[in-house]
Amino acid sequence: MACQYFAPCDHGADSFTIAIPKVTFGRGTLAEVGERAQSLKMSSVALFTDNFLKEGPYIETVTNSLKKAGIDYQVFSDILIEPDDVCVDDAAKFLTSHDFDGVISVGGGSVIDVAKAAMVCAKFPAPVRDYFAPPVGEGKPIPGPLLPHIACPTTAGTGSECTSISVIRIRELNTKFVFASPYMLPDQAVIDPTCCESLTPKAVASTGFDLLSHALECYTARAYTQWDKVKNPNARPLTQGANPWSDLAATQALKIAGEYLIRGVTDASDHEARDQLMWGSALAGMAFGNSGTHLPHALSYGVTHLMHDITTEGYDVKSPFVPHGISVVVTAPATFRYTAEATPERHLEAATFLQADQRGASTADAGEVVANRIIELMRGTNIPNGLSGVGFTENDVTRLAESSIRQGRAIANAPRESNLVDLENIYRDAISYW
Amino acid sequence: MACQYFAPCDHGADSFTIAIPKVTFGRGTLAEVGERAQSLKMSSVALFTDNFLKEGPYIETVTNSLKKAGIDYQVFSDILIEPDDVCVDDAAKFLTSHDFDGVISVGGGSVIDVAKAAMVCAKFPAPVRDYFAPPVGEGKPIPGPLLPHIACPTTAGTGSECTSISVIRIRELNTKFVFASPYMLPDQAVIDPTCCESLTPKAVASTGFDLLSHALECYTARAYTQWDKVKNPNARPLTQGANPWSDLAATQALKIAGEYLIRGVTDASDHEARDQLMWGSALAGMAFGNSGTHLPHALSYGVTHLMHDITTEGYDVKSPFVPHGISVVVTAPATFRYTAEATPERHLEAATFLQADQRGASTADAGEVVANRIIELMRGTNIPNGLSGVGFTENDVTRLAESSIRQGRAIANAPRESNLVDLENIYRDAISYW
Ligand SMILES: [Fe+2]
Ligand SMILES: [Fe+2]
Repeated sequence: MACQYFAPCDHGADSFTIAIPKVTFGRGTLAEVGERAQSLKMSSVALFTDNFLKEGPYIETVTNSLKKAGIDYQVFSDILIEPDDVCVDDAAKFLTSHDFDGVISVGGGSVIDVAKAAMVCAKFPAPVRDYFAPPVGEGKPIPGPLLPHIACPTTAGTGSECTSISVIRIRELNTKFVFASPYMLPDQAVIDPTCCESLTPKAVASTGFDLLSHALECYTARAYTQWDKVKNPNARPLTQGANPWSDLAATQALKIAGEYLIRGVTDASDHEARDQLMWGSALAGMAFGNSGTHLPHALSYGVTHLMHDITTEGYDVKSPFVPHGISVVVTAPATFRYTAEATPERHLEAATFLQADQRGASTADAGEVVANRIIELMRGTNIPNGLSGVGFTENDVTRLAESSIRQGRAIANAPRESNLVDLENIYRDAISYW
Repeated sequence: MACQYFAPCDHGADSFTIAIPKVTFGRGTLAEVGERAQSLKMSSVALFTDNFLKEGPYIETVTNSLKKAGIDYQVFSDILIEPDDVCVDDAAKFLTSHDFDGVISVGGGSVIDVAKAAMVCAKFPAPVRDYFAPPVGEGKPIPGPLLPHIACPTTAGTGSECTSISVIRIRELNTKFVFASPYMLPDQAVIDPTCCESLTPKAVASTGFDLLSHALECYTARAYTQWDKVKNPNARPLTQGANPWSDLAATQALKIAGEYLIRGVTDASDHEARDQLMWGSALAGMAFGNSGTHLPHALSYGVTHLMHDITTEGYDVKSPFVPHGISVVVTAPATFRYTAEATPERHLEAATFLQADQRGASTADAGEVVANRIIELMRGTNIPNGLSGVGFTENDVTRLAESSIRQGRAIANAPRESNLVDLENIYRDAISYW
C-alpha cells in the first residue's frame, strides 16, 4: 500500500513531516491531569470546557486532580457547538484577563478548537479572523510557541487533541474555515475512554462517522508526492497529502470503525467497542492532522450551516446546526463514488479495512463498494438518509456547492479534481441513498 | 491483534503513554537542517558526528545548510562504535566549553546516543554513570528540558532519532546499559534515505536486523496491562510493554523487514528497498521507544562485549566489538523458540508480517516458525551462523548469561519469565543454526 511513495519520482514533493503530541490513553487517565500539568510547570490554568460538561464528573475529576497538585484554575465554559469567531475572541479576552501559564481543554472538538484558537489570539493579539488565509482573513502568521496545552477529548470523533488544526465558524460568512500552525499542536493529549460511557447512541454515531471519514479521506487523499515541492520546510502545510505515516494510522482507524462503530453505537455497555472508537478517533486525528482531509469535509461545511430548522435527536442542546459527523457522512457515499475512478485500488483497500463486501468487485466498482459499505454503516446506526434526511432538497444544491467551493486546499487534496459543477453533482447524488 | 488491551482487566496498568519527535522523512531533507535549526532558535550549534562521516558528503550538506541559515557550529567527532561513559563525559565537556544553544547529531546510533547522553551531563553536571539505575549508577533523575536537538540518522537500524533512550557502554563493567528520560527525546528527526546509498551490504544487514529485532521484540513484548499500575504518571517507564500504538508501528516495520531486508542488502541500487528500510527503522524506533525491547537485546550486550578478537567485514573501522545488529540477531532465533510458548498467537502474527512460511503450522510450532524465518533472512544476507559464527563456544555460555542477567527491566519485558539457567539454555541453543 505504500508503494506509491517509494518509487523514484521526478517531480513533486519528496518529503513529508509529521508531528503528534505526547499521548496518554487509558481508563482513569483524566485523574492524572494535575500531575501532567505539574510536569509542564503549570501553576495557574485556564480550563476550557462547555456548560454541559462543567457540572459533570469529568470536570470534577480534572479539578480535583489540579487541586491535589496545588494548581489554581479558572473555568471558561461559554462554548457552544460549532463555535464562531466571536466566541474565540471572548475566550482570548478571558485568557489575557488572568496570568495563566497553561491551558487544559476538556470537551469535544468545539472546546479543544476554541482553546487552540484563543491561545493564538491571546499570545499574539488580533481578531481570530485575521489568522485565516485570504480572502477570509489576512493570513497573519503565528510567530512562536503558545502556552502549554493539555487536551482531553470527551467524544470519540474529533481527533483534535492530536492535531495542530482549529475549525472555527466565521459568523459573518456563516461557514467554517480551518486554520493551523505547528504551534497549535497540544503538548499532551490525555484520552480517557470512560468519557464515552455516558454518550447517547446518536452522539456516538455522529462522532464515529467523523472519525471514519477522517480516516477514509486521509487514506484516499492525493499522495504527498503529487503536491508541489515546498520551498520553506518550516512552512510545509499540514494538508500535505497522504504519506506512509498517515496511511498507517488511517488504516488502523478504518479497521476500528469497520469493526466497532455499530457495536459502540448500539450498546453503551460495550466497553471494548467504545474504547476502541476512542483510540480510533485519536489515530484518525494523528492521520488527518498530518495529511489533510478532502471532499467530504470540504462539502460538510455548507451542510452544517445552511440548515437552520433542524434539532438533532440525542443532542442535549438545541442547535441550529447539523452535527459535524452527520454533515460529513451524508455526502460521503456520493463523494467516494466520484473520487474512486482516480485511485480505485486505494479505494478498494480502504473498503477492505472497513470490512466491505467485495465479492465479484473489480476496480471499476471501487466507488460503489466504498459507498455501499458507508451506507450499510449509516443504516446500522440510524444516520439520516443523505441530504434529504437533514432537510435539503435538489433546490439547495447550488447554494451548497457555492458555499463549499471556498475550501480550496481541501478540495485540491482530493484524488480527483472537481469544479463547481462537479460539487453540485456530488450534492445531487447525496440527496438520498436508500 | 489489539484485543489483548481492550478487554476489561482487573489488575495491572490501564494506560500507556507515547511520544515521538517531529519527524521529517525524504530524500534531500538533510539540506533542510539549517532552516529547521532556525525554527528551533538555534544560533550556535554543537554538531555531533564520527570521524568517518566528518569529511563526507552528509556533513557537508548539513554544514552548508547551517551556513546558509547563518548558524555557527562546532564539530565533535571523537565517537567510536559502542561508545562508552568516558566518551560521553568528554562530549559533555565539549558542550559546556562553548555557549551552544542547540545540538545536531548526524550518524548512526552511537553518535545520536552520545549526543543525548552528553546533553544530560552538560545541563545537569555529573558523570554519565550517575544517571544509570542502581547498581550500575545512582539513578540520578534528569530534572528538566535539555537543549533543542535535531537527530539525523545515517543508518537504517538504530531508530535512536525517534527514542528517548541512550545506550552507553560502562567501560569499567565492559557492557552496555540503557538510560532514558522523556527529556532525551530529540525535538526533530530528519531522516534522509540518501544516507543509506553508500552503506556496505554488511552494514545494511547488521543494522537491518537491529530494526527487525526492535520490531519483533516490541510486538511480542509483555502487554502493558501486565505491568503494575504506575503511581506517578510522569515517571511511567518507557519500557512499559506492548500497546496498541507500538503494535501498529512494529507491525509495519516487520512487514518492511520481511519484504525489503534481503533486497536492500544485496542491491545497493535498489532505492525502494533501502528507503523502505530507513522508514522501517524509524517506525521500529517509534515502537520500541514506547514499549521497550526484551530478551534479544538483553542477551546482545554480552555478545557485543565479551568477544575481543573479531573484526567485522564491511565495517571501515577495526572494532573489538561485534556490531550491535549482529549481536542481537545471533541469539534471536533461539530466544523466540523460548518465548513463543507464552504467546504463540502473537508470535505467529509476527511471523506472518515477516512473510514466514506457515504451511501446516499450529500454535505449538510458533517458535520454530519465527526462528526459521529469521534464520532464512540471516542466510539470505550472510549473517554469521549464531554465536559460533562470531567466535563463541559452549564454554562461553555461563559468562554470557552472567553478563546479561543484569538487564533486569528488559528481561522482565519478555512474554516469558527467565532465570540464569534459562538464559544459558538460550545461549546454548544459539551456538549454531545451520
Ligand atoms: Fe471532522
Ligand atoms: Fe538495537
